[in-house]
Amino acid sequence: MSKKLTKRAEDYSKWYNEIIQKADLAENSAVRGCMVIKPYGFAIWENMQAELDRMFKETGHQNAYFPLFVPKSLFEAEEKNAEGFAKECAVVTHYRLQNDPDNTGKLRVDPEAKLEEELIVRPTSEAIIWNTYKGWIQSYRDLPLLINQWANVVRWEMRTRLFLRTAEFLWQEGHTAHSTKTEAVSEAVQMQKIYAEFAENFMAMPVVKGYKSESERFAGAEDTYTIEALMQDGKALQAGTSHFLGQNFAKAFDVKYTSKEGRQEYVWATSWGVSTRLIGGLIMTHSDDLGLVLPPKLAPIQVAIIPIYKGADQLAIISEKVGIIVKSLKSKRISVKFDDRDTFRPGAKFAEYELKGVPVRIAIGNRDIENNTVEVARRDTLEKKTISQDDLINYVENLLEEIQENLFSKAFSYQKNHITEVNSFDEFKDIINTKGGFVSAHWDGTIETENKIKELTKATIRCIPNDAKEELGFCVFSGEKSLRRVLFAKAY
Amino acid sequence: MSKKLTKRAEDYSKWYNEIIQKADLAENSAVRGCMVIKPYGFAIWENMQAELDRMFKETGHQNAYFPLFVPKSLFEAEEKNAEGFAKECAVVTHYRLQNDPDNTGKLRVDPEAKLEEELIVRPTSEAIIWNTYKGWIQSYRDLPLLINQWANVVRWEMRTRLFLRTAEFLWQEGHTAHSTKTEAVSEAVQMQKIYAEFAENFMAMPVVKGYKSESERFAGAEDTYTIEALMQDGKALQAGTSHFLGQNFAKAFDVKYTSKEGRQEYVWATSWGVSTRLIGGLIMTHSDDLGLVLPPKLAPIQVAIIPIYKGADQLAIISEKVGIIVKSLKSKRISVKFDDRDTFRPGAKFAEYELKGVPVRIAIGNRDIENNTVEVARRDTLEKKTISQDDLINYVENLLEEIQENLFSKAFSYQKNHITEVNSFDEFKDIINTKGGFVSAHWDGTIETENKIKELTKATIRCIPNDAKEELGFCVFSGEKSLRRVLFAKAY
Repeated sequence: MSKKLTKRAEDYSKWYNEIIQKADLAENSAVRGCMVIKPYGFAIWENMQAELDRMFKETGHQNAYFPLFVPKSLFEAEEKNAEGFAKECAVVTHYRLQNDPDNTGKLRVDPEAKLEEELIVRPTSEAIIWNTYKGWIQSYRDLPLLINQWANVVRWEMRTRLFLRTAEFLWQEGHTAHSTKTEAVSEAVQMQKIYAEFAENFMAMPVVKGYKSESERFAGAEDTYTIEALMQDGKALQAGTSHFLGQNFAKAFDVKYTSKEGRQEYVWATSWGVSTRLIGGLIMTHSDDLGLVLPPKLAPIQVAIIPIYKGADQLAIISEKVGIIVKSLKSKRISVKFDDRDTFRPGAKFAEYELKGVPVRIAIGNRDIENNTVEVARRDTLEKKTISQDDLINYVENLLEEIQENLFSKAFSYQKNHITEVNSFDEFKDIINTKGGFVSAHWDGTIETENKIKELTKATIRCIPNDAKEELGFCVFSGEKSLRRVLFAKAY
Repeated sequence: MSKKLTKRAEDYSKWYNEIIQKADLAENSAVRGCMVIKPYGFAIWENMQAELDRMFKETGHQNAYFPLFVPKSLFEAEEKNAEGFAKECAVVTHYRLQNDPDNTGKLRVDPEAKLEEELIVRPTSEAIIWNTYKGWIQSYRDLPLLINQWANVVRWEMRTRLFLRTAEFLWQEGHTAHSTKTEAVSEAVQMQKIYAEFAENFMAMPVVKGYKSESERFAGAEDTYTIEALMQDGKALQAGTSHFLGQNFAKAFDVKYTSKEGRQEYVWATSWGVSTRLIGGLIMTHSDDLGLVLPPKLAPIQVAIIPIYKGADQLAIISEKVGIIVKSLKSKRISVKFDDRDTFRPGAKFAEYELKGVPVRIAIGNRDIENNTVEVARRDTLEKKTISQDDLINYVENLLEEIQENLFSKAFSYQKNHITEVNSFDEFKDIINTKGGFVSAHWDGTIETENKIKELTKATIRCIPNDAKEELGFCVFSGEKSLRRVLFAKAY
């Protein structure tokens, strides 16, 4: 395998696939559209999970676990949700294989073992969860019910792409029940805020917070709040959504509570999720033509230390020194790897950590031992500096923070420079087809216009920004009146 | 719902189900044999996961994620494994539902969307993982490969029981590849040791370490190492297994490596797993007729504090005091809940935490404020003590350790008293049918005898203990020569 990456400018999509392969993040599996997440990729996901889980628990949510399967009849209960997901799901119809009945060494589905009712592998869990909540909610004392689950889900996608769109993916799905509409809306908005904070503070990925147009809404939701990020190729990525479900699921599954006043009321619901798709967003936000670039707060290895030596004696001296450095770094909760493998040369190791996006690389050789120095290289700017060993720990600690901030501000500038206000459809098409990014345009609010624009430009309404100013204007397509600008973009 | 539990002596199985229900651990779902793990039950699983995951990582393992589905043809590759699991699995045959084609509001499986090859919902992941490892392993430099995954698996069990045997369950499965047989055997034995340490030090559940007879082995393994625990009704519970798989999977999936000497060799394999079944074991090891009893190291709430007050003024004074106590306990990493709900009386709260097995309960009332005291009750012995507030933090810290140790030694005595050596089949039957527990007996080593004994007594060979002494004797059933005693028991 060639160590050299395809350049982004040459073939962005090839570059993306190669990074995933060469940085050992994931690969396609023997099952159509399903991926294997390799240890290095999974370690990033574990770091994401840990932070998100902490944020959920700090806001009063608890984890639970609901079945993988949804009986078909439950799925039918909420009509819009069923419509939205029925097209693309894995269906279990049988529960047994026969072992080699034809004496050919093959297994065969046992026709006798047909399920009375088909089971759907969950594409999302609203149906099974709301069917369960019916038994958990009796009175206002049982509310709010604030539950999250970490799970795998399956959507039978025809065109898949590692991390961005796979048949099976890992995610978390929050499902909450509330006694009032106001409280449920606040919850949905709160979770959008938490997702944005996570994206910006941990992934160093700036996002626009907004809500979806009707046609882009989650099937079964009254409002979908979204965080939208911008990739380096100018395409948008929906990075997380939080739905206000109104009373749709409560009514479909007959979930009522007795209010303080003794009345029977339907509860109000939200659901919200982010998935392993975030790893795709992370890759495409920061990485460069040399490989992955990871923000320190999510990097499985924050610092790699590489000895440069000839012979065992030199290595012994260096290793002793590095032992002390590793201990000090670990005491600061910095994750560090001393790579003393003798099966690879330093140059190969440098290339490997560059490809894998390790934020800080330290090289230490014989001359460094003599001079009490080390060489510190940062992955984001590729700058190298010679540092006294005495200052190293503080230097690295500050450097990791600096890299985290630098990645965010670089991505933030990019995003700012790629939100373009347009006032005519010619301008609109021009920006979408050349510069890319978000196009901020007036829209008349109709699905017809939305569809026409999509048909002509492949751009969709990513969101109506939360902070969109009221501003009278005219739809770029129809010329009809409009009260605010919305963001369009081509999207993943 | 009655607050009173059925007594163990009355109906052990009913007692078990009631504890799970009343302590809010789990419930049956709308999907046959699949459970919903409720937040309190799931919090126990999260604590288990955190400790096990730490132990795996400390011994050099990394997490990864492999697909939920296994194509039928991969499953066929390892014959014994296929035989062992084919009988009981969920089979996906279609990938789409049609929305309301008959205008009846029903979904229908789309006959056009039939999969060319059926997909099996993983009952275990050896096949899909070894098919993947083929691409990961080329040379001795790629070994050992030490990978674990946390996942859901499905086995279509006909008779299910919450936690102990469910169609879907959560588990971890380790899958490792090694260059030598010795190393693979050491790995399998190491993981058995880690499981035993976890069971004893965290779950306070003593276990016997041993290996399985041929007929009880994992399908596809050359040796299965097990940890076997004993429940309070005298039945054994297989709590974790670790398999030496020989080269069976390497040969089935053609996984070879180039050795240092340049030879092509098949690799050696292990796999090992524990599951949510452990929660069933935890319940049945310690709990009593009043409810769940949890070892402090795994309890989601280690200390519950209940205010006893009349009116808001008293509550305010108590709350202020409790605030300081909570802060001090948390600084010692003790998980504490101050239950100041005004919708329940203190008596109801006492009963709730008793049912939920919270190790330490602190009550604090008006008189305690005057006397600078609190009342501390421990769940294991039900003892109560009045303690000065000045000594409270240290007292609680020590008490949690004491409870942890007490639970283990109580369970250990029970286990010791329930390993009975027998030298005739009459004795064997007598012990199995009256006292229960493990019966230590000579066995001639044949499957025929094993099956006969099972048929006549329902007892199976739980394991051949790792530390079984070589001792010449005669099989209790056949009278044939035997070299060591093995442990029989009725088992879950």
